[in-house]
Amino acid sequence: MAGDRIWTAGLLIIGDEILSGRTQDKNVSQIATWLNIQGIRLSEVRIVPDVHEKIVEAVNALRGDNDYLFTTGGIGPTHDDITVDAIADALGVPVVVHPKARAVLEAYYESRGGVNEARLRMARVPEGAELIENRMSGAPGIRHGNIFILAGVPHITTLMLEALSGTIEGGKPILSRTIGCWTAESEVADLLRETEKAHEGCQVGSYPFFREGRVGANFVVRSTEPLALESCCGDLIQGLKAAGREVVPDGI
Amino acid sequence: MAGDRIWTAGLLIIGDEILSGRTQDKNVSQIATWLNIQGIRLSEVRIVPDVHEKIVEAVNALRGDNDYLFTTGGIGPTHDDITVDAIADALGVPVVVHPKARAVLEAYYESRGGVNEARLRMARVPEGAELIENRMSGAPGIRHGNIFILAGVPHITTLMLEALSGTIEGGKPILSRTIGCWTAESEVADLLRETEKAHEGCQVGSYPFFREGRVGANFVVRSTEPLALESCCGDLIQGLKAAGREVVPDGI
Repeated sequence: MAGDRIWTAGLLIIGDEILSGRTQDKNVSQIATWLNIQGIRLSEVRIVPDVHEKIVEAVNALRGDNDYLFTTGGIGPTHDDITVDAIADALGVPVVVHPKARAVLEAYYESRGGVNEARLRMARVPEGAELIENRMSGAPGIRHGNIFILAGVPHITTLMLEALSGTIEGGKPILSRTIGCWTAESEVADLLRETEKAHEGCQVGSYPFFREGRVGANFVVRSTEPLALESCCGDLIQGLKAAGREVVPDGI
Repeated sequence: MAGDRIWTAGLLIIGDEILSGRTQDKNVSQIATWLNIQGIRLSEVRIVPDVHEKIVEAVNALRGDNDYLFTTGGIGPTHDDITVDAIADALGVPVVVHPKARAVLEAYYESRGGVNEARLRMARVPEGAELIENRMSGAPGIRHGNIFILAGVPHITTLMLEALSGTIEGGKPILSRTIGCWTAESEVADLLRETEKAHEGCQVGSYPFFREGRVGANFVVRSTEPLALESCCGDLIQGLKAAGREVVPDGI
């Protein structure tokens, strides 16, 4: 069925600050969560430094493998902001100043010292691009075909995602339910594998922990089909109880 | 100079839970920070799902490009733990049961219901591997040549990194200093670029923020050479002050 086609996205995070350990990334989880709601599956993430060739290579790999490519980082006004140039290079198009981006920046900076050469860098886009609104700082994000070039600062990324919500074609969202159980996952491994096998289109993930002095695990069941999900969860809960385990139906 | 060679590592994070947005990754920043102390630069991160071919492909790409490859996740006892099989496949070696890992698991589980087939999965390694100690849960990490296969649960990852500290050859650690400034980064972009250019072997990163109702930025200067770092930071501070900016020498 055409409606069942799975839509995927790759995510490229550009930034020395993540690779140096200085900054804790927050964009993977917020973009993953947002994509799920759009019915798009995040299939791979790469984090690369502010190095032109590394960005070009990753852009071409990820856009070839996926319906969409999202990037974060490197679209500010300083010398280490090289994302636009690298993506233009990957696409084989020149970098141009987008008239609307220029107008947005001129308006934004009118009361903040005016535009200068550095600020105008933020109006540069790969030729053929549209803008993604950013009501916070003036500098817009950029859409070029199936590539979405977003800011790296997480709360600005959030605003750009909001501007994109509902505008990108996706498939059925992935539904998930978490079932908690006070058991060592290794004691129910067979049950997990067999339950997954018996329910087509369902994946069962196992996430163990040690908490309150006890060993436990959360089992996450995922599917695009609500009925399959419900049936798989029902069987899993029943199986765990039959094995004498204490189940927490909504996760621990 | 041979001593100046830069050592690099790639990091492969294996796990549907990160790509679904369910779990916030913490291993990138902790491994990046740990690598810096060992004198090794984290050059790229990839996050892939629990899919055999995706893991094989990423392992081969990252180990070819770097001195070391670290992986996290997928080494537990359940059906979704496929890291060992995929890495063995990437290396073209069979999976074998490591006698010492088996002994460690048998001792650990003696008072916890004994080993079973699922638990013995955690004694499986790519042929030719050594073990990495894990004093928490019994199940060891795995070293195979320049590949380090670690747990995905962050506090267990930490223990495995501790066991590896000081055992891996690296180069000079990357030093960094953060200089804060109450300025829009776009107002000092030229100064940043020129200061970086004037100091060979130094990188200057710019990380803007909006805080306490004011616009500011932290400038992070990185170098392996303490003298070059000091000189670059001195020039940057002087330049910012000369431009009439309020500088916070240790960052904001």
